[in-house]
Order: sequence, then structure tokens, then C-alpha cells
Amino acid sequence: MSTLVQDRLRAGAFGNAVALSCRECGATQELGPFYACTECFGPLEISYDYPSITREQIEAGPANIWRYQPLLPVPADIAESPNTEPGFTRLIRAANLGRELGIDRLWVKDDSGNPTHSFKDRVVAVALSAARELGSKVFACPSTGNLANAVAAAGARAGIPTVVFIPHDLEIPKVVASAIYTNRLVAVRGNYDDVNRLASEIAGEEDGWAFVNVNVRPYYGEGSKTLGYEVAEQLGWHIPDQTVIPVASGSQLTKVDKAYQELIRLGLVEEKPYRIFGAQATGCSPVAQAFRDGHDVVRPVRPDTIAKSLAIGNPADGPYVLDVVRRTGGVVADVDDEQVRQGIELLARTEGVFAETAGGVTIGVLKQLAESGALDTSAETVVFNTGDGLKTLDAVADRVGPAATIDASYEAFTAAGII
Amino acid sequence: MSTLVQDRLRAGAFGNAVALSCRECGATQELGPFYACTECFGPLEISYDYPSITREQIEAGPANIWRYQPLLPVPADIAESPNTEPGFTRLIRAANLGRELGIDRLWVKDDSGNPTHSFKDRVVAVALSAARELGSKVFACPSTGNLANAVAAAGARAGIPTVVFIPHDLEIPKVVASAIYTNRLVAVRGNYDDVNRLASEIAGEEDGWAFVNVNVRPYYGEGSKTLGYEVAEQLGWHIPDQTVIPVASGSQLTKVDKAYQELIRLGLVEEKPYRIFGAQATGCSPVAQAFRDGHDVVRPVRPDTIAKSLAIGNPADGPYVLDVVRRTGGVVADVDDEQVRQGIELLARTEGVFAETAGGVTIGVLKQLAESGALDTSAETVVFNTGDGLKTLDAVADRVGPAATIDASYEAFTAAGII
Ligand SMILES: Cc1ncc(COP(=O)(O)O)c(C=O)c1O
Ligand SMILES: Cc1ncc(COP(=O)(O)O)c(C=O)c1O
Ligand SMILES: [Zn+2]
Ligand SMILES: [Zn+2]
Repeated sequence: MSTLVQDRLRAGAFGNAVALSCRECGATQELGPFYACTECFGPLEISYDYPSITREQIEAGPANIWRYQPLLPVPADIAESPNTEPGFTRLIRAANLGRELGIDRLWVKDDSGNPTHSFKDRVVAVALSAARELGSKVFACPSTGNLANAVAAAGARAGIPTVVFIPHDLEIPKVVASAIYTNRLVAVRGNYDDVNRLASEIAGEEDGWAFVNVNVRPYYGEGSKTLGYEVAEQLGWHIPDQTVIPVASGSQLTKVDKAYQELIRLGLVEEKPYRIFGAQATGCSPVAQAFRDGHDVVRPVRPDTIAKSLAIGNPADGPYVLDVVRRTGGVVADVDDEQVRQGIELLARTEGVFAETAGGVTIGVLKQLAESGALDTSAETVVFNTGDGLKTLDAVADRVGPAATIDASYEAFTAAGII
Repeated sequence: MSTLVQDRLRAGAFGNAVALSCRECGATQELGPFYACTECFGPLEISYDYPSITREQIEAGPANIWRYQPLLPVPADIAESPNTEPGFTRLIRAANLGRELGIDRLWVKDDSGNPTHSFKDRVVAVALSAARELGSKVFACPSTGNLANAVAAAGARAGIPTVVFIPHDLEIPKVVASAIYTNRLVAVRGNYDDVNRLASEIAGEEDGWAFVNVNVRPYYGEGSKTLGYEVAEQLGWHIPDQTVIPVASGSQLTKVDKAYQELIRLGLVEEKPYRIFGAQATGCSPVAQAFRDGHDVVRPVRPDTIAKSLAIGNPADGPYVLDVVRRTGGVVADVDDEQVRQGIELLARTEGVFAETAGGVTIGVLKQLAESGALDTSAETVVFNTGDGLKTLDAVADRVGPAATIDASYEAFTAAGII
């Protein structure tokens, strides 16, 4: 099959990517719909023949992730094939939140501005390109919710059939915001880890299916690098001292580190020490637990938290998160559901950003780390909001509301004592 | 009071804006918190001493509305004061939707990527600047929902107290996504027109309140020009032949026309004929009705439609919408609530964009105009999605959903006959 794949590929199908290489044993294999090493079954990742590239070239590109095309496994003409055009979301200076937490120089990277309002549009756009180049006939995923939205939307726009698997008890907004795009949304009785197992089984049985986070996962993961590139570019081409990132499967966190490494290697930013921190919800904190225990392996848990988008009990990239965080001098920590809710409110009241529960987790962990001193409050810090409050409305719906309901008269207004 | 205002203003507080001028009698007055002509009570708008400006200068600016700072009533250092940094949202080629409707060259301007997921972040950002420069102590609005979200978020980030008035029966997502940012959200028993009247009353009674769409409305309105600038820039600096725009108060539509006129006048695009079309929901279609009847005045109606964000029965800029549409050879049309729902679904299935009801209205009208021949299907056409489907979930929640709920096994999947 692998020779067949190569024969079918057009030249430059994966841009400057040259091979898949094993994260465990380093063995390489040709680019294709592969995700496990043929030698040791370790996970594969993309390796590149890095081009020389300048800041100016990047800055002249489109205001979306394709400005980084030379560093992604996508063809040079990617911007011309129908895709959702995600990325280049705002990075805002968070002076109010910083003041509240005692952090001098704080920034929020707000990925809720993406087409389906989470960072998942980035990874899906890269996976879609791979699926297209590989001639896949179905575009699919198991999802904790945001990925479902992103896959269904991208597939609709690209005109490729999607099949999207979600846990049966997902938040209604995430269900509707997937089903609006596809008539092949499948609810599965079980939690995400059950859904994920089912997806692997189907990927093994069916030919020509691209499961974005299963058999084309190496391509998918590269999409998260764009978060790291953008943060550095938007800061004026330097890496922040500290970056705080939510962890579900752990892919995003490890890829932001990869992005920083690449930028240094390519001379696009100066080399410097930086620290990466991971954030989990206590009700699903296997990586934080392993970090605290000093373990290299991550023991699976059964999730129980309102942060459903992060509810992966058996995180594929958990060990690599531990590597990155330990190597850079960071921490993986967790906060409980009440702190998640408070994190959502705090970010909204101080910076006007309405995050989903994953963002509440990350803000909650930022606060905890600032208070404990684990995070250097005098160092430049970027915290990620990777999702949208409108998708997890119930987390805060009973905590906020109108201050009063009044008749439409000035007297009624003054009587209500609003201000 | 007006001399007082001038004395307090810092130099360049309003950028290249030089005066307020009456849309009815042309009388001018100094810049300040004024919205009605002292001569004839006509509405005021901003006039400028237009600078000479090049495409390159604009393109070198930030990826948000401040790239057009020289054409807005905001200071040159606007990007440095805390604001939500809206704009420069994606303009996507809509080949699938175009095929479906028989329109050769169709584009969707998708404003759901803004910070609070509607175009209102644009107008609010400009109004906030005016409020700040005028030394206002309260930032306020009456709203059909999206404006409430935008004002509450922008005020939180800017650290200025907000008071936000909404009809008591607004969609829950819009209520929560306002209350999350402010503890001064006020629900009013009545419809939007009642809320708007109350706001005018309060604006008259209280000193130092900036009601974004009442007493600082001239500044606010200018924010919508950025939609027109962006469309032209993103098309490679030309005006589309046809633009289809939703109408509530009518401000947005008239300001997109103003933007096109300015671009021509400044030599940033070539002069050409263009047509502007307005879209309303049948249950609140006073402007479409006046258009059909050949009237110059708009007779107020009592709204009854699921498109609540467009439910303004007494639209302040209605007559000016009629002027623009008639002058450019467009049409104002309306679609019923069932067509609104179908419009939302059609856009999602074809382009992966999940619009709110206002977007459903606009797509529905686009379809109707294409079918009737009122719109030239061979001309380049841009249709606006100005809001987000997550805010009006109930409009479609009972029409879409999982195709099946299955056990987590391959057998259960194949038995479900999904694909
Ligand atoms: C909003 C949000 N943030 C963060 C994550 C974590 O992503 P990863 O699986 O790459 O750790 C997810 C995963 O679903 C998510 O939905
Ligand atoms: C999503 C959306 N689109 C369009 C409009 C129309 O705006 P205008 O009042 O400028 O006509 C509104 C107004 O609230 C809106 O919320
Ligand atoms: Zn290996
Ligand atoms: Zn006048």
C-alpha cells in the first residue's frame, strides 16, 4: 500500500515535509496515512527539509495559518483549495487580568475568533490538506466537541463527506454546531476514550477514511504549531518567557514547543530559555498527577469534570507533555470545576473575553501558579484561550444574569438602583 | 456645554474627523457628544478632512480595523488603548453556495470571527474611543442582543462601567454572553423599540453617559465602514458589483456605501457602478415594505420574527437605506422565518459557516433575489454574515442532530447504516 500511496501523490503534496519519523526510536518512513512506527509502534511525527525563510516573507502572507505554509506539511498552493482559513487570531495585552493576578506582562492568545471558535480549526485545516492529497474519501474524527465542529465545517466547505463521532452526553451547543454542517454525526454511548477506541477500530477496518486525530494525526498535530508561530510573531518576533497551555491529549502543548524550537533553529527569533506550563481540570488530570508524582508514564483516569473538551482520560501525548514541561522548567497543574467557573468569569470581567471551560481551566491554573510562585510573575507570560464560552454556556448560565428586570421608564430605571 | 467639550478634548482626539454635519440640511457643528442637528434635528454624521493615503500604508497596518484609522474618527494612537481589536475577518470564496444558487462569483464576508462574534464589535470599538475622548463615565446601549455583548465586553476590557439594556425576552446565549462581562445588564419589559426609547430618555437625563447607538451614534456608525473597506481590500482593491447586507436600524448598510464612496474618492479603488441590496425578516420588514411601496418614509411596525437581532420596528436609518438602495439600483427584500432557518442550514452545509438568524435572513434574501432575477447572477457578489449561530441555537436546534446514537462497537456502527 505504501508504494501505491507514493505513486498517487502529486509533487509537493506535503510542502517541505520529507518523511515521517518515530518519536521513540527515530526510524523514518515515507509520508502517507501512517501514524505508528513500523519498527516499534511509537507515534510518528513529520520531519522537514527546512527552507530558509525570512520574517518579511511570512509577514507578506495571508492573515491566516497559511502564512506559515513553508513550515507545514501542506502544498504551496494550499490557500487556493477550499478550507476554512483559520488562524492569525488576536493576541491581546491583558493588563487588567495581569493586575488582578500580580503578573506584570501578561497576554491572552484568543483562539475563539477561529471559524468554528476553537483552535481545532488549525489542526483540522492541515489534516484536511493531508486527506485531500492522500485521496481520502471520508473525513472523520472522534471528538470531545470542538474537533467535531471543526471537522464537520471544514468537510462541508471542502465538499468531502464527514463522519463525526461524539460522546452521547456532549454539551448541546457543540452537538448542534456539528449537526448543522453534517448529516453524519454519530453519538456514542460512552466517554471520549470509548469513542476514540471505536474510531481506531473503524480506521483499521475501512479503507480511505482520514480520521484527523487517528491515522492522519501526524499532519493534524502540526496545525497546532501555528499557535506558537503566531504568538512569537505577534510579540514582535520573540518567544515569551512563559506560556500556559491547556492539555487534553497533549498534542497542542508539545507542538507549541516544537514551533518555538523551529523558530530558533530557523533564526526567526533569538534563542532563549522559555518555560511551558500545562493546565488540566482536576476531574481529568492524569498528566498533572504524573507530573506531581515524578512519573514518566501517565496512568489513565475516568474523567469527571465540566471541562468536557479536555476530558481525555488516556492522553496520547501525555508522556511528551511531561518531557516538554520538565525540559523547559514548567509545571503541569490542575484546578477544580469551581475554579474553572471562576476562571471564566475572571477573564470575562477583566478582559472582555468569554472562554469556554477549557479557557477557564487555563486561567484557573495561571492564577494558581502565580499565587504559588511556580510561575515567575515578573516574566512575560502568554496564556491561551483555545475555545468559546458560547459552547459551554451552562457552566456559567446560573451564575450570571440581568441585575434587574424593569418597566420601560426612567422612573423604573432609577428605582432599580443599578448605578 | 459644547465649548466645554472642545476645551477638554486633546488634539487629534478624533483623528482626521473635523466636524459633525447634518444629513438633512448640511449644517455643521463641532465634534462632541451630539447626534441631532441644532438647526433641523436631522441626524448628524462625521465629516473628514481626508488625508492622502495609499494601499501600501493600509496593508502595513494591524490585522484589525485600526489599519483604517486615518478614515475613522479615532486618534492615531488608538491601537494602544485597551480595546477588543475587532475586524479583518475572513472573506471566503463561496463556490458551493454559488453553485447551489446559480451565482458565478460569490463571496461570504464572515463577521462571526470578531471578539464577541458579530459585526457590532466594530461599531463599539469606534464608539468606545469617542466615549474615552469625551471623558464619558458610563458606556451604555439599548440592544437587540449582539450590541449588548459587544458593549459589555469592550467596557470590561477598557475598564469603563457599562450599563446594557435588552428586551426581557432575548435569546439566553445573548443574555449570558452579556452578563458574563457586566453586572449592570438590565432587562426591560417591552420590545427593542421600547428599550431604545428608554435609552434616549436616560441619555437626556444623565450626564456623562455615552450611549453608543444614541448620543455617540455618529461615531458608532463609522465603525461599519470598515466592513466595506475590508471587502474591497480583500478582493484585491475593488468594489464588488453587488453587496447583500442585513438591515435592522439600517446603519450598517448606509455605512458600507459610504466606505465604497470614500475608497473611490481617495483613489484606492477604481470608480465603478455597484449595487447594494438590503435584507430583512418578513416579521420585521418596514424598510422592504417602503421599498416595495415606493415610499420615502418608513412606517414603523411591531416586530414578530425569530431574527431578533434585526427586530427594530422603527429603524433610525431606514430612509437612508432606501436612498442608497435606489441610487445604486439594488432592492430591499424580506424572507419569512422558515426561509431564515433554511438560509442558516444552506450556508452551513455548503460553506461550513454557522450563521445566526441575521445571517439566515441575508442568505434567504440572496437566494430569493437570485431566483427572481433581481440580482445579476453573473456579477461578482458579496453576502454578509454578521453574526454567529451559537447565539441563536434554538432557531435550528430541533432541525438537526445526531443521525444515530450507538454503542461503542464497530458492529453497532455498521448496523446503524450511516454511510
Ligand atoms: C478548547 C480546547 N482546548 C484545548 C484542547 C486540548 O487539545 P490537545 O488534545 O491537543 O491537548 C482541546 C481538545 O479538544 C480543546 O477542545
Ligand atoms: C447580527 C446583526 N446583523 C445586522 C444587524 C443590523 O445592523 P444595523 O442596525 O446597522 O442595520 C444587527 C443589528 O443589531 C445585528 O445584530
Ligand atoms: Zn519507532
Ligand atoms: Zn439639519
